[in-house]
Amino acid sequence: MNALDDVIDSLSRLPGVGKKSAARMAHFLLKSDQSLCERIAHDITVLHDRIHPCRVCGSYTEDDLCAVCSDPGRDRHLVCVVEQAQDVQTIEAVREYNGLFHVLGGVIAPLEGIGPDQLRLSELVARIMEGEIQEVILATNPTVEGDTTALYIQRILKDKGVTVTRLASGLPVGGDLEYADRLTLARSFRGRSQF
Amino acid sequence: MNALDDVIDSLSRLPGVGKKSAARMAHFLLKSDQSLCERIAHDITVLHDRIHPCRVCGSYTEDDLCAVCSDPGRDRHLVCVVEQAQDVQTIEAVREYNGLFHVLGGVIAPLEGIGPDQLRLSELVARIMEGEIQEVILATNPTVEGDTTALYIQRILKDKGVTVTRLASGLPVGGDLEYADRLTLARSFRGRSQF
Repeated sequence: MNALDDVIDSLSRLPGVGKKSAARMAHFLLKSDQSLCERIAHDITVLHDRIHPCRVCGSYTEDDLCAVCSDPGRDRHLVCVVEQAQDVQTIEAVREYNGLFHVLGGVIAPLEGIGPDQLRLSELVARIMEGEIQEVILATNPTVEGDTTALYIQRILKDKGVTVTRLASGLPVGGDLEYADRLTLARSFRGRSQF
Repeated sequence: MNALDDVIDSLSRLPGVGKKSAARMAHFLLKSDQSLCERIAHDITVLHDRIHPCRVCGSYTEDDLCAVCSDPGRDRHLVCVVEQAQDVQTIEAVREYNGLFHVLGGVIAPLEGIGPDQLRLSELVARIMEGEIQEVILATNPTVEGDTTALYIQRILKDKGVTVTRLASGLPVGGDLEYADRLTLARSFRGRSQF
């Protein structure tokens, strides 16, 4: 049963996959065609070779510049600062935002030994210095670390001649006041807008 | 972004994995070492080559006979009939049963066009005819199809000189009467035992 145990062990390394789900996947693969196994294996293997960070914004791409940075239709006055490359995909999927991105590669987290120097902040400042960017939208997560990082960036950009904004925080659409946590409810009050 | 989309698409073919979980896995793989990707890919690729059904019981093995069938310490008077090969692993993990297994490879499901002929029933009868087996434990799932299949097997084994039993059905341990469904509760009455 070794090869089966091996694949269960391998698959359970993936995030959100425990031993039981891994076993279910392994049995599914055994029942499926070998071509599916080969396809999955191939796609996983070539991932690292093909994908690397975009030279400008740091999000994932197969080319020198990512699809957003190389798109002439994007608004080059706006740059949205996110924690991680997958955040770019999340925001792109919403089709609401038409500016550029800047991936920090993390957040300031002193307990984990991550300071501002480990983030792509000098690259952000350098991009702003080029003069085209007018607004920086801070889209780090509404967590302690994300808020701290947003505050830090807001400070270092204070005298750089750009507007710095933060994504609205409040009640999720379709949510219920009854189930909102205290902090979210408090923020929704502070961030209220005229009807 | 093609290689990334490809791997997300591939991974979302796995059972229980949607687009979001697949994306999370893909980004995890991108951040991990290439050696992990290669290990997962390798284990998936060799699965079909290495694993095949046991010649006797039909559960998965790398050899001619599975670990259970080739173990001299197992009780060869008992055979537990299960729907699928993964059921063998589930039962083995409990360490309660010390007999042999027989994998049917499915259940009787007329709506899906699966009749008794598609199951490994003649192999089961042949094993019983060898004379060593004294009890057949029917461990198909307590579903309509599983019960039907169990009933069918009980009938064809009626005159074969073996005791045919069925796994107990009733309240799950740690469960609550309040949340038990009607059928389970009814069965727990019918299957009650003296205290």
